[in-house]
Amino acid sequence: MKDYSKLIAEEMSAINWQKQPINIYQPIEYILSQGGKRIRPQLCLLAADLFIDDARKALIPAIAFEMLHNFTLIHDDIMDKADLRRGKETVYKKWNTDIAILSGDALFAKAFEQMLKYKGIGNVQLMELLTQTTIEICEGQQLDLDFESRDDVTIEEYINMVRLKTAVMLAGCLKAGAIVGGANAKNQDLLYQFGIEIGLAFQIQDDYLDVYADVATFGKNVGGDIADNKKTYISLKTIELASSQDKQLLKEYHSAQNITKIEKFEAVKAIYDKYNVALSAKELINTYYVKAKSSLSQLEVENSKMSDLLSFADKLMGRKY
Amino acid sequence: MKDYSKLIAEEMSAINWQKQPINIYQPIEYILSQGGKRIRPQLCLLAADLFIDDARKALIPAIAFEMLHNFTLIHDDIMDKADLRRGKETVYKKWNTDIAILSGDALFAKAFEQMLKYKGIGNVQLMELLTQTTIEICEGQQLDLDFESRDDVTIEEYINMVRLKTAVMLAGCLKAGAIVGGANAKNQDLLYQFGIEIGLAFQIQDDYLDVYADVATFGKNVGGDIADNKKTYISLKTIELASSQDKQLLKEYHSAQNITKIEKFEAVKAIYDKYNVALSAKELINTYYVKAKSSLSQLEVENSKMSDLLSFADKLMGRKY
Repeated sequence: MKDYSKLIAEEMSAINWQKQPINIYQPIEYILSQGGKRIRPQLCLLAADLFIDDARKALIPAIAFEMLHNFTLIHDDIMDKADLRRGKETVYKKWNTDIAILSGDALFAKAFEQMLKYKGIGNVQLMELLTQTTIEICEGQQLDLDFESRDDVTIEEYINMVRLKTAVMLAGCLKAGAIVGGANAKNQDLLYQFGIEIGLAFQIQDDYLDVYADVATFGKNVGGDIADNKKTYISLKTIELASSQDKQLLKEYHSAQNITKIEKFEAVKAIYDKYNVALSAKELINTYYVKAKSSLSQLEVENSKMSDLLSFADKLMGRKY
Repeated sequence: MKDYSKLIAEEMSAINWQKQPINIYQPIEYILSQGGKRIRPQLCLLAADLFIDDARKALIPAIAFEMLHNFTLIHDDIMDKADLRRGKETVYKKWNTDIAILSGDALFAKAFEQMLKYKGIGNVQLMELLTQTTIEICEGQQLDLDFESRDDVTIEEYINMVRLKTAVMLAGCLKAGAIVGGANAKNQDLLYQFGIEIGLAFQIQDDYLDVYADVATFGKNVGGDIADNKKTYISLKTIELASSQDKQLLKEYHSAQNITKIEKFEAVKAIYDKYNVALSAKELINTYYVKAKSSLSQLEVENSKMSDLLSFADKLMGRKY
């Protein structure tokens, strides 16, 4: 399987960031140097791979989207009051809120500057794609914030929020790769659709794993969503199905003070289990996953070429085939 | 004299803002509906006027820059902890910081979306101009924040900060008008240069008026810079010239507690007057103003066409000829 992560890492570290003002460019270098999984630029290159021999042509949009992604992280961490990201202090915590706002804004603009380096056919379309993606991500983040203070969020609204906040960026990266690859509109749209579906599958799986993952394998902070009273597919599906008595019980656990984190987790999980929402989640994850594969299968591309992108999506989903 | 303010107001109010999420789009509509002087879009249209018969062709970039300007205001007001703007509550105050960050980000992206509506020759150049302008404005705002905690800011550094924070946006608007008008590179650059020079003259005049304006005519809160210990051309020039004794005195007034606002203003102003910095400021304003006129005069355009842009600049500077 092709692995573009090294190429992307080299390209990212070759960027020559201006030095002044240091309070703009140090935070940008700081967050970009932390790496992360570089999922977005890899999707962009793997999409380009389907249509052209040298996917390096898609490096410009790939890096532009990675910059855009990191801009959203800098600003989201302010709003989410997140102290750590990738095991390191967040920008707003290490510096301050003003610096996080401004260096985020500058990185946003730098993503556009990066995209404008692409001079080939489709350059304007790439700019439109980057712009629309940003607008939708802002909308998704706002919906997510709005949901915190609402108790009537429907699953449909939740899915729409995830689509905007998470999936459109993956979809945008894939479409950007297709544009650079010279793919026709139909193939561009199919890859975009694939990105939306894999993004939804991925986020709902994340919601599922927060409750049902094996701590040892998942590694992450299992139960974090329950501790933070986060609205997830799991919690919303339970509310949809639960008796008014159980809904009341869930509300009480939300604000319960005299209870340990583990007690709360076990109690809330017991209610989830009563309505078998783990199965609902698995079904929905699978539905989106099957849809995603179906979108890919409609591409006018030789089947053999699809294997790298499929393997990458499987890896993303933690599936080993 | 041509007055495009009505055309711009109509165009701004005709924008059909999406309704959802309301916490993104209401703040945007709120700040854009407050009007303001619409200096930037007017400069854009007046620049286009020099080269083409119908300046309306430049409405797209004119509105894009006005959006960009308002995005910077939303974010700056968070950093400056400004409660009021144009006599109304600022976005972060009326809603909250999170909403101000996100609606600002969305308006930033919307400015690019607006610019992308322009499909004529020079469309990519317009995008590059908008991008570079944004990067420089972020740098200027960061320098301004950095200056707050420094006591060794030079006048050269201050002028560079003003150039980035204020002047490049005016220059960008003028250049955008020239691009839409099909002006050649030389004329584009001369208009850009005119914008930088008029922007510097304007800001230094603002610094001057804060101390020396007649309250009745100026209308604004005279003395605000002194009350807030703001670094301005006036304060920095004084520090450059002052005896170590007077510098020490200024420092003491900065942190003085047992003194009224008016007493502080009069005492600090007396030190400014001792070094005749009002004259230095007037000289520098005039230098930039003369340079600006000289840049205009080099344009390969009939002199008669220049009168509207010149009148507008004079109005901006409060000069009545």
